[in-house]
Parts: sequence; structure tokens; C-alpha cells
Amino acid sequence: MELVKVGVIGIGNMGSSHVQLLDKGQIEGAMLTAICSSNESRIEWVKSHTKGNVQIFGDEETFFNESGIDAVLIATPHYSHPELAKKAFAKGIHVLIEKPAGVYTKNVLEMNEAAKVNGKVFGIMYNQRANPLYQKLHDLIHSGELGEMKRTNWIVTDIYRSQSYYDSSKWRATWKGEGGGVLLNQALHHLDIWQWTTGYMPNRIRATSSVGKYHDIEVEDDITAYVEYDNGATGVFITSTGEAPGTNRFEIIGDRGKIVVENEELTFYQLTQSEREFNKAYKGGFGQPEWKKIDIPVKSENANHPMIIQNWIDSIRKGSPLLAPGEEGVKALDIANAMYLSSWLNETVELPVDPNYYFEKLQEKISTSTFEKKNVTNTLLNVKGTH
Amino acid sequence: MELVKVGVIGIGNMGSSHVQLLDKGQIEGAMLTAICSSNESRIEWVKSHTKGNVQIFGDEETFFNESGIDAVLIATPHYSHPELAKKAFAKGIHVLIEKPAGVYTKNVLEMNEAAKVNGKVFGIMYNQRANPLYQKLHDLIHSGELGEMKRTNWIVTDIYRSQSYYDSSKWRATWKGEGGGVLLNQALHHLDIWQWTTGYMPNRIRATSSVGKYHDIEVEDDITAYVEYDNGATGVFITSTGEAPGTNRFEIIGDRGKIVVENEELTFYQLTQSEREFNKAYKGGFGQPEWKKIDIPVKSENANHPMIIQNWIDSIRKGSPLLAPGEEGVKALDIANAMYLSSWLNETVELPVDPNYYFEKLQEKISTSTFEKKNVTNTLLNVKGTH
Repeated sequence: MELVKVGVIGIGNMGSSHVQLLDKGQIEGAMLTAICSSNESRIEWVKSHTKGNVQIFGDEETFFNESGIDAVLIATPHYSHPELAKKAFAKGIHVLIEKPAGVYTKNVLEMNEAAKVNGKVFGIMYNQRANPLYQKLHDLIHSGELGEMKRTNWIVTDIYRSQSYYDSSKWRATWKGEGGGVLLNQALHHLDIWQWTTGYMPNRIRATSSVGKYHDIEVEDDITAYVEYDNGATGVFITSTGEAPGTNRFEIIGDRGKIVVENEELTFYQLTQSEREFNKAYKGGFGQPEWKKIDIPVKSENANHPMIIQNWIDSIRKGSPLLAPGEEGVKALDIANAMYLSSWLNETVELPVDPNYYFEKLQEKISTSTFEKKNVTNTLLNVKGTH
Repeated sequence: MELVKVGVIGIGNMGSSHVQLLDKGQIEGAMLTAICSSNESRIEWVKSHTKGNVQIFGDEETFFNESGIDAVLIATPHYSHPELAKKAFAKGIHVLIEKPAGVYTKNVLEMNEAAKVNGKVFGIMYNQRANPLYQKLHDLIHSGELGEMKRTNWIVTDIYRSQSYYDSSKWRATWKGEGGGVLLNQALHHLDIWQWTTGYMPNRIRATSSVGKYHDIEVEDDITAYVEYDNGATGVFITSTGEAPGTNRFEIIGDRGKIVVENEELTFYQLTQSEREFNKAYKGGFGQPEWKKIDIPVKSENANHPMIIQNWIDSIRKGSPLLAPGEEGVKALDIANAMYLSSWLNETVELPVDPNYYFEKLQEKISTSTFEKKNVTNTLLNVKGTH
């Protein structure tokens, strides 16, 4: 395939950004040939911000049936990702979905099944996997240099949001509109990077979330979760949009040392021997294994959306392996769903969560919601610099 | 009072250190006049390491009745602190107890009551309160500069212990001998500093401890606790003796910024305005309050035992206020007891714990214990450099 004909559906904050990337020819081997949006002002924006050879569709059926696209980038609101992806697969169209994969695992698993049956290239915009910082972390852990994992700790509070952010759209931070708060929107990348870099999914989660703690919203803006892993390791994940200035500090302890990722720097405290072996052999009472501090200079790059799109296009054209296969979108979502469920039930929850049970519980949240936003401004936000 | 006649009871790791301080005249206004120990080899050690004018007692009754001391430094195993303190108070003797105040709050509260009735000067060896680093932190928070507290997070894993440490004595790390593990022995100072610097006791605790996770012991060597405070703030406390090299990072977030204490340095990220006020007023969507990073150079000093002893002697002689009043020993112990109880019951526990209930649960641990240490070495450890 010479040039992949790409369509973009959903022209919000992220979709607009993708449209410009494609239209300006910044993705090699891809061209923007169609968009789909039901919002007139966004359609006007596309018309005035693209070269003019982009087909405009107002409804998704016509978009998928008549646009002639090879591949679609789905940047609609969260809930619709699985349904739209399934429609695209049914038409033999390659798919790149914005994160999250969906809001609940039930239909995300269906989407994954459809992708498998269809065999098209299916990616997810886990752009942080393209961040050299996390790639290095992933490699250090997977190479075995850190040894058997003992504990993880990630404090993610550098994602401050003011009330005006939440007020920018009616659907933001509602159960019906987004299906969650900070976990599903700001911290989902971190949930993915947490499991992807360590190679471990938690098997049990105990979480406490605070709904509307710092903002007038009906979903959580603050959460602390304790997790356990199959190998006996434990972990803590903390996130909040109400702290300033925030922290982003990820610590992973293994049998051969500790890695700390903070301030966009990676530091490896490397033991000269296994701690477990030292523990057995040492006879001196106080004392600990020798170690050295290794500063690993890696330039952190947050704005890696083009890399993920390029990787997806390369996979379509040349069969290159995907950095973020769409099927893996369910993992971070499963962690998020387990944290919600644990908070709602005030119980420890085992993973994976029961997809049907979680779906039911979420429907309860939506159907019993009486929350009304006081001051919706309908503002399109500039996402530059966010993840 | 010209010179305070001080006795030391218990000549283990800490007691030996105190004997030397006093004998070498390093505490102004105090002289060592008596010691009490039932261990012949420790008595021999005292004889050969002091000037020779120290009375030696083998049993506590004679020690308290006949030594003529004004003040006693109690450095016996944990369990005996409250009982010995009460005996001292009954004789009109001033008391400085080693930490912990005891093992369970039931008899610690009785000790506090006895101290109150008696009116003598009662201190506890919370020597970290004399650490300039934590004094500065205490002052920054109590002056209101940090604003209303939102979250605390303390990772205390720089207290590595090998199996040989635990094997050094039969009573170490047993329910009967010490009444707990890392929480009661290594991390108790931190529990005190946590509540003392912030001025907040948690009101609810959910903890998961691992018994003998990294060592052949019957008590916990690894614990993660989630806490909630009256004002809605949350916190996490993590400690372990099985990680190397460890972390000691204490983060406190308030409405006016964040303080991080790590690597014996204090950094204040100060907002130029209250976050709560910014949140209300700001209309820009993304964006956060302005802040500046202030590095506060404070020399951390861990070996502050002499300062606490001096402060106690000064209080006896001149009425100076105590930095670590003995009555406050119950606070960290209450936190520790709540963490144990939560772990044992697999439930969230409210503070203060019921003293009688905790006592009963602890007795169960002791009476049902079948644990036998395989390799007891009976070694006196050099505590230099520990807390």
C-alpha cells in the first residue's frame, strides 16, 4: 500500500490535533481523506484548517460506508470507542483508538474479539509507551537487571485541573459522559505504563476514591489504591487533580535494586548482588548490600502522538510490530474498573473484574445520577502539553 | 537541683550507649550513679566501661528503693516500659523511657495517668523530634505556611535488616519479646514524626502487613497503610526492612503547596496563592497556580539521643519544656496498634483503638505462637548510626 487513506472520527481536543498532523503530511505514508463529526462548528474548523481535499461526513454510517478510507483514527468520546471500532473492523478498516479503550471491559473485550476475527491493524493511543523514559524503564525491568519485583509506588498528581476545565463541557467528568474521572481521563496512561513497564498486572486491588473532593463534579478527582501482585509484591497508586504543584514519582523495587523515575529522570540504584542472597549470607547484624547510583540520562518526550500514529501506519504498510496494540487497552481499563469497584463496594477486588457485573454497577451510577453542572462554558481546550 | 543523679535500667544496645554518654559527662547537670541489669555480662561491661562510682543493681526493686537516684532512664525491652515507669513514679523519680512507650496502649495509658498523678518530669526518647530537619518541617506546617493539609505520603524503607539482625537475640521480632516488627521497632519514630510534624492523628486506618515476608520471623517486616484524617485529608505510610537500597521520602501536600523531605533535604514548593482560591477564580481550563521551589538547607542529625536526654535533664533542673513529653508516646503506638489490628482483622480500623480489645488480640498472638527461631546468636549489636 503506497499511501494509507486515513479518516478521523471525532473532532474534539485530540481529534483536531490528529487532523492537523495528518493534513500537514507529518505522518509518512498516510493522507487524511475524510473526517466525521456531527458538530457544525468543528466541521467548519476542519474546512478552514485543512487543504480542502478532505471529505466531510456528518454521520458514522456514511463515513464508514462511503469514504473509502483504509484506516480510521477514533477520537470520539470514551464510550463510543468499542462500538465504532467494531463497525470499522466489520468494514475491513484498520483502527487506531484514542484512550481509553472504552469505559468498561465488557464491550472492550467484544472489540478485541472483533479485531482478532477481522485481522486488521488495531492500535491504541498509549502514546506514553513511545516516551523514551518509559521505554528505558521497560527495558531495564524486562532485561532482568532489576531482579524480581518487590514493590511499586506511583504518585501521579501532576495533572492539576481547575473547575473551569470541568466546566468546559457538559459531558466532562460525568458517569454518563465519560464514565469516570481522574483515573479514566488523566491517569489512564500511567495505569498502562505501570503494568507495561513492570510486566505485572495486579491481582488484587483495594482503593478509596473521593468524589468531587476538589471540584464540583460527580466523579472522582482523588484516589489511593493498594495493590497486590501474583508474586507477592505490593504496590500503591495515588492520583489526584486537586494538588499543586503535583508530583510524578514512580518507584519500583526489585531484588537487585531500585529504580526511581521522577522529574523526567531515571535513576537506577543497583545492588552489586541479589538482596535475597545477601540476606542469607550476611552475618553482621546491621548492614546492607552494596549499591551504586546510576543516573540514566533519557530525554522524556510527552508529545508522542505522532510516533504512535506513525507506528500504526508503518504496521499497516510494512507489518512493523505495534508499540501499543489495541488489544492491550483492556489492561489499564481493567485496573481502573477494579479501583472503581473497590471504592464503590468498599471491598478488596480481584482482577480481572467481572465485565458484566462492572457494567451493571456503572449503569446504576448513570441511571441514579442527579448531578447537574452549574456553569457549562462549552469551551474547546488547547491540549498542547497534556498527554 | 545541682546535679541530677541518674540511673539506667536495661543495658542492651541503647542502654549501653546512654551509660557511656552519662558516664563521660556529656549531659550537663547529670551524673550516672546507678545501673540495673540482670545480665552478668552486661554488668561486667558497665564495670569496665564506667569510672567505677556507679552502683550496680541486679533487681529493679532494690534499684528503685535503694539507689537514691532522682531520675531514671528506662532502656529495657519494650513490654516493661510502662510497668517500670509506674514504679519509678511511685517513688517520686523522674522518668525518660526509650521508645516505644510500650507495646499496647492499655498499660501506656495507665503509665500516662501515673505520670500525671505523680507530676514528675516524664520524657520519651523520640530523638527524631530533635532532628533539625523535622523541627523545620514541624515549624513550616504549624506556622500555616503550607495551608490546610490535603495528603501525606511517607515511604520508609531505608531501615534494611538482614536475617542476622533478627537472629541476634531470641526475643527480637517475636510477639512475646517485642510485640511487633518493623512498625514497633524501626518505624516508630517515623510514626511519631508523621503525627507530630503535621499536627494530625489519622482517624481511620486500613493496613496490610506481611509477616516474615523477607525474614524468618513471626512478626511483620513489610506494611502498607492507608489513612484518613478528620479534615478529609488522606495519607499512605509504607515501611519495610526487606528493601535495599531503601527510600525515605516524606511528602506533605497542603492548600499552599507541597513539602518533600528526602535525602535529608527539605524542599518547599510554595504556591503564590491558595489552590482552593485559584480553583474558584481561574477560567482558563488547563493551567495551575504559580509556585516557586524553595530549597531549605537544614542539616539532618539523626544521633540526637544526647539532646533528648539533655532536654529531659534541663526540664528537671530548670523547668524547660520537654520536646518529647512521655505522655505523647501513646500517639505513635496508637497508630501502630491500629495498623496491626487492621491487618489482623482485614478491616478498616478507627482511632483510637480500643485498648482492651487490642490487648486481648495481642495476647492471642502470643499464646498461639508456635514460632521457634532456628539460629539465635545472642549478639550485642552496635547501634551507631541507627535511630
